[in-house]
Amino acid sequence: MRFLSDNTASVCPEILAAIHAANQGLTVAYGDDPWTARLDEVLGEFFGTPVRAFAVATGTAANSLALATLSPPYGAIYCPTEAHIACDECGAPGFFCGGAQLVTLEGEHGKITAGALAAALDAHPVSVHTVQPAAVSISQATELGTAYRPAEVAALCEAAHARGLHVHMDGARFANAVAYLGCHPGDLTWRAGVDVISFGATKNGALGAEAVVFFNRDLVRDFELRRKRAGHLLSKSRFVSAQLLAYVESGVWRRNAERANALARSLGEAAGKRLLHPVEANEVFVELGVDGKASLRAAGFEFYDWGPAAGGRARLVASWDQDERHVAALRAALTAS
Amino acid sequence: MRFLSDNTASVCPEILAAIHAANQGLTVAYGDDPWTARLDEVLGEFFGTPVRAFAVATGTAANSLALATLSPPYGAIYCPTEAHIACDECGAPGFFCGGAQLVTLEGEHGKITAGALAAALDAHPVSVHTVQPAAVSISQATELGTAYRPAEVAALCEAAHARGLHVHMDGARFANAVAYLGCHPGDLTWRAGVDVISFGATKNGALGAEAVVFFNRDLVRDFELRRKRAGHLLSKSRFVSAQLLAYVESGVWRRNAERANALARSLGEAAGKRLLHPVEANEVFVELGVDGKASLRAAGFEFYDWGPAAGGRARLVASWDQDERHVAALRAALTAS
Amino acid sequence: MRFLSDNTASVCPEILAAIHAANQGLTVAYGDDPWTARLDEVLGEFFGTPVRAFAVATGTAANSLALATLSPPYGAIYCPTEAHIACDECGAPGFFCGGAQLVTLEGEHGKITAGALAAALDAHPVSVHTVQPAAVSISQATELGTAYRPAEVAALCEAAHARGLHVHMDGARFANAVAYLGCHPGDLTWRAGVDVISFGATKNGALGAEAVVFFNRDLVRDFELRRKRAGHLLSKSRFVSAQLLAYVESGVWRRNAERANALARSLGEAAGKRLLHPVEANEVFVELGVDGKASLRAAGFEFYDWGPAAGGRARLVASWDQDERHVAALRAALTAS
Amino acid sequence: MRFLSDNTASVCPEILAAIHAANQGLTVAYGDDPWTARLDEVLGEFFGTPVRAFAVATGTAANSLALATLSPPYGAIYCPTEAHIACDECGAPGFFCGGAQLVTLEGEHGKITAGALAAALDAHPVSVHTVQPAAVSISQATELGTAYRPAEVAALCEAAHARGLHVHMDGARFANAVAYLGCHPGDLTWRAGVDVISFGATKNGALGAEAVVFFNRDLVRDFELRRKRAGHLLSKSRFVSAQLLAYVESGVWRRNAERANALARSLGEAAGKRLLHPVEANEVFVELGVDGKASLRAAGFEFYDWGPAAGGRARLVASWDQDERHVAALRAALTAS
Repeated sequence: MRFLSDNTASVCPEILAAIHAANQGLTVAYGDDPWTARLDEVLGEFFGTPVRAFAVATGTAANSLALATLSPPYGAIYCPTEAHIACDECGAPGFFCGGAQLVTLEGEHGKITAGALAAALDAHPVSVHTVQPAAVSISQATELGTAYRPAEVAALCEAAHARGLHVHMDGARFANAVAYLGCHPGDLTWRAGVDVISFGATKNGALGAEAVVFFNRDLVRDFELRRKRAGHLLSKSRFVSAQLLAYVESGVWRRNAERANALARSLGEAAGKRLLHPVEANEVFVELGVDGKASLRAAGFEFYDWGPAAGGRARLVASWDQDERHVAALRAALTAS
Repeated sequence: MRFLSDNTASVCPEILAAIHAANQGLTVAYGDDPWTARLDEVLGEFFGTPVRAFAVATGTAANSLALATLSPPYGAIYCPTEAHIACDECGAPGFFCGGAQLVTLEGEHGKITAGALAAALDAHPVSVHTVQPAAVSISQATELGTAYRPAEVAALCEAAHARGLHVHMDGARFANAVAYLGCHPGDLTWRAGVDVISFGATKNGALGAEAVVFFNRDLVRDFELRRKRAGHLLSKSRFVSAQLLAYVESGVWRRNAERANALARSLGEAAGKRLLHPVEANEVFVELGVDGKASLRAAGFEFYDWGPAAGGRARLVASWDQDERHVAALRAALTAS
Repeated sequence: MRFLSDNTASVCPEILAAIHAANQGLTVAYGDDPWTARLDEVLGEFFGTPVRAFAVATGTAANSLALATLSPPYGAIYCPTEAHIACDECGAPGFFCGGAQLVTLEGEHGKITAGALAAALDAHPVSVHTVQPAAVSISQATELGTAYRPAEVAALCEAAHARGLHVHMDGARFANAVAYLGCHPGDLTWRAGVDVISFGATKNGALGAEAVVFFNRDLVRDFELRRKRAGHLLSKSRFVSAQLLAYVESGVWRRNAERANALARSLGEAAGKRLLHPVEANEVFVELGVDGKASLRAAGFEFYDWGPAAGGRARLVASWDQDERHVAALRAALTAS
Repeated sequence: MRFLSDNTASVCPEILAAIHAANQGLTVAYGDDPWTARLDEVLGEFFGTPVRAFAVATGTAANSLALATLSPPYGAIYCPTEAHIACDECGAPGFFCGGAQLVTLEGEHGKITAGALAAALDAHPVSVHTVQPAAVSISQATELGTAYRPAEVAALCEAAHARGLHVHMDGARFANAVAYLGCHPGDLTWRAGVDVISFGATKNGALGAEAVVFFNRDLVRDFELRRKRAGHLLSKSRFVSAQLLAYVESGVWRRNAERANALARSLGEAAGKRLLHPVEANEVFVELGVDGKASLRAAGFEFYDWGPAAGGRARLVASWDQDERHVAALRAALTAS
């Protein structure tokens, strides 16, 4: 019974069908295909504004390529302490940006505030000796399973833009945030000032498909060259683009996210006071104690420690295709413990 | 009628079936899955020697990650003038290696010789002021549609190893070379001294699957960390590994390559004296003249110029799934012209 | 009356004389000269242990080249929040290391503790997804004008080594720390476990001379190649090496540091309760208030804000050649205010 | 009797005097000093046009920093096969540019032509798959001791600019070329279309001083940030700037170059038919045979092999301060052999 990550999930039928449908005949490679040609339009409709969208196969690539267009090699990128780009990508932003420096900010429940950003910027007057503030990167949903409200995003973007920084959103679980908040995708992104999003589909039902979506199309710059030289321009791009189109057009993005969110919420209710953060997406962070973790594992549940193994914290993730019986069993185990 | 590239090809049924078969339940992500667990064994059997194999989704990633494990940032990588890494990857080796310098060598029909390598090394005595010779990279089949014979590879590897360089093979069309030469995969690689190969499946029937295969397992070093920070560790790795397993185990690697080679050979025969290089794989390089190119295009054939558009050279590529009628039509057009 | 930085200082007579003395005839370039040949021996005697020492012209180069030998491109380098490498080198460590990530730790008076380091390491279990902890870098004297005691350095080194990290010391003001503590240079470095130091002379009387000194000589690795390709191997190296030899052999390192420290101490006494940190080297951090800063400036004193200009904090630095009358004037102004 | 390199030379009196003169009191660091403030004006007068000039301490730094402002990380930089940036800087351009690719062109006597550049550009149509042609870099005087004529430079610049490339000149021995040709410095640079020059003084009498001089001031871009993060902004910049000012204003640049050139010319005359290239600066390339090299060395002459030690070619360099008696002795030895 795996609650390790939504990366353990399978590919949902709609998306697999789209891959099949795209497998017809000889098609011009490297993105000059009819599927990729529709990306801008379809994602533009999804977000409710004209966009430039680029398909890649991994979230790390999406994040780092986006940041490398926003930040020079001597730039500073501000992000929460728990950011995926800071903690889980083996230094990819530094690699893609040619050395840019991450500056981590403390926040509450995985969210940083406009005030924290402004304070950090105020503390270090910029000169030729300092890294040059270039970008802010936030995750939506956050790495702690919460979701920024539109006004929170807007305040952050305003603070960033006021100082000349651009804003990147790591949307590996963007669908989960939208499903939770019940708002329009545009409310959490361009209407609030986000310049570019890594719009993830992989965790939520795709095989391997992420889109870097520029709302601020002036920032696209040399993105395509950076993608190519990083080995992230897939020759048979039609199969990544087809996944993204199906993900958006079939509505599976919402259906899958809603199901995963609901399952996580039910786990969160069972965890009760042991919850470390509100459950606003499909992740549940819970203080189980070392013994509690061991008991659950002995009962057949797989999950990751959150923090050191010697600590008592655990992360439980519900995937779009999570077996309802496994969730019920985990709920029961949590309730009983 | 597309003869643009084998990247235009579709996914062959055996490999699509393998993707389906792998789409079962929640599986541990990032390569800790049963499919990836079999890669070393299955590719080891294919090559006839123990190997360490790593799956990635693009050939550029495979080449650059392999080279980055072989070369320090101040290293020199020797390759033919026409090398894919030098001409078609937007500087990826320099990016992944942190600045390593490509040194291109002239050859005949896309092949460089042991003598040319030795001469290049002799010409520049190594000191703290020079880039440090680190690796040789050759393509098999070559970028000009020819295939190194085992003895040619062995001589090159011997010359390289004698000077402390390691040898990388870009095997984007390795199956085509093996099919043409009728030898064992091991004869063209580890038995001849190759240290690491980018073993391609994408051009020959996969959706997006390449394996970096280390014969010299001491050279693996930090490959996994480099792959991760480059965004090339796929979360749902099972689907890439499953493609590679099916590619090798089903024998489709040979069947597809043999068909593409045969179609290209027949085109080469039709081209006759206009051929620029022997047709030993699935690519045909032909001097058509500017008018000849225009005529073929007017007749509905798509292909790329080889060299400047103002020149008369063309590249015709036969894919594994090329329509026989299209080939017949192109053959007729070539014969008639 | 400049109290801006010890970088404003002139070159002391002993060192200028050494440059003159080295200016004799044609000498083999790039470090194969008699002055450079003596560096290891002379600095080994200074520190009381065999070393490998390399001359460069700037502290940023010394720090970054040292760190690039300690950290892979996907490494993590732990340092205090105020570290020069984090705040004042325009991202140089990220550049030289090919993307390594700085992780800043909070400390007291510019010093981080073994406990803080251990806690930071414990919080993030290492995997292929994380940056790989590689090094700790501390400044001695610190960026806040304090000095680590030998036992503090030893505890930090022990904590670092226990986790496989190496320890770098930014010794731009190392002489000031030694002069203050009255201990042997070895007590603050290799005897406490430091692996490599950037041993600065520029701020303390040289024209432009820093030495990267490896106590752990196994770590030298490819330092010389990295220095060369960064443009930091000076052709006329004799003139940098000669500065370093004179700096150490003449005893001017101590004399200059003692004078600067004494002047700073007297300023610190005048600042009294407004001091932000103990004055243990040649820097004085003081809360003057916005008006206080303005008054001093109006009286002809030049100094830098510490933090935002809108804040009330100032940094006053005493150089080795600071005019005693200027110090007296500043002391008086501080006392009066 | 050293004829190894002009890097073995001492510092000429005028420049040492300027260092002394600059050693007065506390001066604002990092280039905000009165000497650095005059660089633009003084070098602008030297070249006869407004410039932006930046001081660094090494030629490798000057070249690589200039190129990094001209080329993106996925750029191609065209240069002669023998270019210092390709052969003698341990991969510095790749490092500073973040991976840019050097493309070497064959030439005659170290010079490449507009035609060779155009041919190389024509051969590889640019696409997202290729490196992006960004810059041409030539040395003046060349690495083979010859000098481009103004018309040759102009033709090359015209060919480069017509294709959107910028032109960099490695002027480590620029004074020697000007002295030989007897033309105005502007004729060889901005009047001919050069965008930026690495203007060297170190080989010709300075201690360590090079200026990156932008004629095309729009290209300065982020040069200052790149210099800082590479550790090449010297804290006591006044001493580098003072060298450059003295070098230009005292006329020593010409006097030293004329003397070195004359000495080299006399050696070239003695070498007679064994000369490999015309002697147009202060370097003499000569075919001595293995025995000839050994004989000269046995007679006390020091020089470097040109090419492999097993070959018979040698490079003899005359420095500004070369002892006339040594030159006479070498001339005699060459004549006798």
